[in-house]
Amino acid sequence: MKNFGFTQLVLVNPCPLGDEAVMRASHARDVLDNARLMTIAGVYREFDFVVATTGEVSKSVCTAMRMPYYAPAEVREIIADIDGTVAILFGRENWGLANEELKRADLVCTIPTSEAYPILNLSHAVGIVCYELANLPRGTYPLAGRVAMESLYRHIEAFLDLIDHPGFKRENTMILLRRVLGRTRLTTREVSTLHGLMRRAEWHMENKVRARDQ
Amino acid sequence: MKNFGFTQLVLVNPCPLGDEAVMRASHARDVLDNARLMTIAGVYREFDFVVATTGEVSKSVCTAMRMPYYAPAEVREIIADIDGTVAILFGRENWGLANEELKRADLVCTIPTSEAYPILNLSHAVGIVCYELANLPRGTYPLAGRVAMESLYRHIEAFLDLIDHPGFKRENTMILLRRVLGRTRLTTREVSTLHGLMRRAEWHMENKVRARDQ
Repeated sequence: MKNFGFTQLVLVNPCPLGDEAVMRASHARDVLDNARLMTIAGVYREFDFVVATTGEVSKSVCTAMRMPYYAPAEVREIIADIDGTVAILFGRENWGLANEELKRADLVCTIPTSEAYPILNLSHAVGIVCYELANLPRGTYPLAGRVAMESLYRHIEAFLDLIDHPGFKRENTMILLRRVLGRTRLTTREVSTLHGLMRRAEWHMENKVRARDQ
Repeated sequence: MKNFGFTQLVLVNPCPLGDEAVMRASHARDVLDNARLMTIAGVYREFDFVVATTGEVSKSVCTAMRMPYYAPAEVREIIADIDGTVAILFGRENWGLANEELKRADLVCTIPTSEAYPILNLSHAVGIVCYELANLPRGTYPLAGRVAMESLYRHIEAFLDLIDHPGFKRENTMILLRRVLGRTRLTTREVSTLHGLMRRAEWHMENKVRARDQ
């Protein structure tokens, strides 16, 4: 949960927490240390909105208890504008949440899984739900802008001149290269490396011409 | 990985696999049993497209090796139309993939994480990437269609008549209820329960009227 920026852990009637809990918490020791203990009734009293998680709901069991259910990305949308506290309730490793524990939930969340092996372990379920709810942007890197790309295309055209690329093929070749380099979304660094490669090839061709002429 | 429908596991120079591996594989024992052993060179020879995964790339280290990188959902889009075999390459628990191992990759994938604790363990990284790449649809449940909803609204209007709801408020009340029940996307089961509740209330009101008249 800390990997995705969530730090407020609530433990409902937990077993005693010993060395193993500390070891497994690893760099999220602070989350464990700051965990609050509550009863299930306390959770429903304290939080404005409670999302209960459940394993994939069997198609045969169509109970109101766990229906309708939403995928984590849908839950993210549904709770996005809640102006209050939201709890995501996870059950036990071995048998999840009892009906008695989830019946007061405001929303039921299920991670879609393969029918061949639908039961996720708790730890992965928490990881995936936190990943989806956080929906963190990935870091950005500078993509080459329009000016840099046009400058690259002009360099390529000059390069084609240098290697005597036939004029009647020129337009189609440039279109093809625009398509290739356009869809690959070059970074500024990559553009500068491509310029460098062409300059080096140009230098060698000019030097050979010079050597031949001497 | 089996939770999300992936079954072809390749192990690159693995440590000996003993009882712990079997125990942890749990109901995915078949995936472990069918795992193929390869060298890293074998992976790049055999697969048409290799996606290497890496922990969040430090903003200061702007190497070509791990740049640009894509979030799992972006990778899903990028590889969607590949007509060939795709490998997703994960590194070791403790130090990931060496530059030597990922330099030939066709694409680099990073799971966006919190700066407070950016290092995911291997098991969760695999879970999240498999979850995103599988992008399984959640199960569906029958939502009430237009006809069922209009029938519910007619029943509600009749119910408002019965409880002498003032006519001048009627239109606005019905609009409010349409907004509430519309955005909640009722299932057919929920619609039928609401009909049932109103019928029961109607029955009681009629019976009291009858009792009073007798």
